Amino acid sequence: MIKHKLPKGFLANGIYCGVKKKRKDLSLICSEKLCKVAAVFTSNVVKAAPVIMAQRQLKKNGLVKAIVINSGNANCMTGRQGLKDAREIASRMAKLIKAKADQVLTSSTGIIGELMPMKPMIKGMPKLVNGLSKNGLLEAAEGIMTTDSFSKISSRTFTLGGKKIRITGIAKGAGMIDPSMATMLCYIMTDVNISKKFLQEALSASNEISFNAITVDGDMSTNDTVMLLANGEAGNKLIDGNSSEFKVFQDNLNGVCSDLAKMVVRDGEGASKFIEVNVKGAKNDKDAKQMADAIAGSLLVKCAVLGGDPNWGRIASSAGSSGVKFNPEKIEIALDGVTFFKNGKAQAHVNRKSSSVFKKKDVKIEVNVHSGKGKAIAYSCDISKKYITLNSYYTT
Amino acid sequence: MIKHKLPKGFLANGIYCGVKKKRKDLSLICSEKLCKVAAVFTSNVVKAAPVIMAQRQLKKNGLVKAIVINSGNANCMTGRQGLKDAREIASRMAKLIKAKADQVLTSSTGIIGELMPMKPMIKGMPKLVNGLSKNGLLEAAEGIMTTDSFSKISSRTFTLGGKKIRITGIAKGAGMIDPSMATMLCYIMTDVNISKKFLQEALSASNEISFNAITVDGDMSTNDTVMLLANGEAGNKLIDGNSSEFKVFQDNLNGVCSDLAKMVVRDGEGASKFIEVNVKGAKNDKDAKQMADAIAGSLLVKCAVLGGDPNWGRIASSAGSSGVKFNPEKIEIALDGVTFFKNGKAQAHVNRKSSSVFKKKDVKIEVNVHSGKGKAIAYSCDISKKYITLNSYYTT
Repeated sequence: MIKHKLPKGFLANGIYCGVKKKRKDLSLICSEKLCKVAAVFTSNVVKAAPVIMAQRQLKKNGLVKAIVINSGNANCMTGRQGLKDAREIASRMAKLIKAKADQVLTSSTGIIGELMPMKPMIKGMPKLVNGLSKNGLLEAAEGIMTTDSFSKISSRTFTLGGKKIRITGIAKGAGMIDPSMATMLCYIMTDVNISKKFLQEALSASNEISFNAITVDGDMSTNDTVMLLANGEAGNKLIDGNSSEFKVFQDNLNGVCSDLAKMVVRDGEGASKFIEVNVKGAKNDKDAKQMADAIAGSLLVKCAVLGGDPNWGRIASSAGSSGVKFNPEKIEIALDGVTFFKNGKAQAHVNRKSSSVFKKKDVKIEVNVHSGKGKAIAYSCDISKKYITLNSYYTT
Repeated sequence: MIKHKLPKGFLANGIYCGVKKKRKDLSLICSEKLCKVAAVFTSNVVKAAPVIMAQRQLKKNGLVKAIVINSGNANCMTGRQGLKDAREIASRMAKLIKAKADQVLTSSTGIIGELMPMKPMIKGMPKLVNGLSKNGLLEAAEGIMTTDSFSKISSRTFTLGGKKIRITGIAKGAGMIDPSMATMLCYIMTDVNISKKFLQEALSASNEISFNAITVDGDMSTNDTVMLLANGEAGNKLIDGNSSEFKVFQDNLNGVCSDLAKMVVRDGEGASKFIEVNVKGAKNDKDAKQMADAIAGSLLVKCAVLGGDPNWGRIASSAGSSGVKFNPEKIEIALDGVTFFKNGKAQAHVNRKSSSVFKKKDVKIEVNVHSGKGKAIAYSCDISKKYITLNSYYTT
């Protein structure tokens, strides 16, 4: 097992304070120096209080010292009191770590529409701060989990101009995951020295091919947040252009984001199989992405994968209802490397019933539209009875 | 129980011929006189052979004498052979009922990508024709079923200028149902005397508030067809304008289509509860429909209804991710008549755990956006473990 470490100058911790019934529910990420921040938030019209507040803070000021994250309560649809609560958490934490209130961001995940249980959170904060550590990464990753069955951590190290750079991220997911990143929280820390503009550019690009390429159940949450903090402690020459250094940073950030996004899919509520949908030959990349997302999100396709049923007709049908125009006669469909439809014909030599398709833990759906160079990949998981059980009794 | 009858001059039958393993799989609707036809087909880019053929026939010629429908095989993604097979079925049937080949339409539903089992169908046709009867409605309705657990029939009778008019429809659904009518077959017969133009106008309007307002699992099929045949045998004065007679006909057609659409939802694969989503106060009807469809289609909302869990936050979240812009502070959400969110606040007096919400067979979700006069209703059903089971092992 890889031992992931925090980048230079970062500390983290996660504790149980009493928002949830048993598991850790409060995490803190803290940098010794002020950080530049890049972020991507939910596009849901209904935004949780910490999202609204973080968007305001980042508009005013780019520099941040810490992020406090709680799980168990989303602080969403909580009106003015919700915003007041988020502000109070930030300002109390700021005092404890000797920062300004607007240098502390907050995030929340959990049930919607209930006011935050402020008492246990306030009571737990000093303990949270006292436990901050260079080795607190796992604790922080655990504190942000909701229905996740494992903690999600990824990191990369590389050198730029002789300086060692580290990028380390933690995420929570499971359920409600969709392109446009539903109920996804992700915090990435790096010690690279980079301008705010290029930090945001790198995060937006990585987000597009990772968190925006995954789907679990088609729902988009009110709290989705991906944040990237850079404290510059690695001491490399400032990245402020489309340099080769920037490209190296981008590649490594892509790696961390893809790792975390795939872990989120693998841990889709009750999921047993990981699905990669690979579309090529579309008119353009946009069409390819639209088609890949439609197939990855189709409930009937997910059911087929669960049952190990090579029902490629459902894949054709999903592609056809994706809104992308194409010639169905030209389409080619392969499942786990076995071609089922090509040249306007089902490949009759394939014996469906004895087929080995969709039997492994990782399955692959390939669609070639044969009408251009557009390509895209989407990731998904099967749906199971456990998903239904988990989501039928979430609040009660 | 209501005894539904065919309109004057119509005959029907349904038999088992051997496409499926046991149940009836071949139906015929036949009019003694030629009929005007209106139709709505799937908007899926991947269209089944009978859909392609029917669209061609209806372009050339409006007059039809019969429709042959088989279940068990969709005749989709079957290339040229599929079109040839559909043509052969029409021409063989035409000979048997002494009509021209282009006066016979065909429809199919079932598995995608396998060639039609022509032998049993051809062998069964004479028996199908010999059994045609004024009382064959139920047999026809049974012959088009796939995973449906009950046959779906509705009718209306009324008078226009002293003449008795009847509208009678049959449908099949279950699974893969979505706005834009996925895997939905519906055949409506009427003896009204009406112009082709107004027949189509009436069907399009009825379709919009019925089959296009229902959702089961978000997938849209390759074979969706709604057809309306009018043979004029009632002998009323021709309807060819926006007259009061037309309005009466429209109202009754709306009734038949709504009945059938709701039956399709109630029979959603494995469904145990019927969900009505009622959105009002949106900027316009389009926004209201988009929001209602998003809520009705949300997997997490369906799970909440299944579990009897009044998780109204998921409804707010679905509304927020529907693509409609609105002010979340103004939104009002009521479940089964109990208001959970209003004036920017959760209504704390509602005790979630002891709540009676979502416990009955018919549940209601009401959303008032409080920003205009737009309104829409969508129908849906809960999702169950049975749905997953049914759809995991469909082909194998």
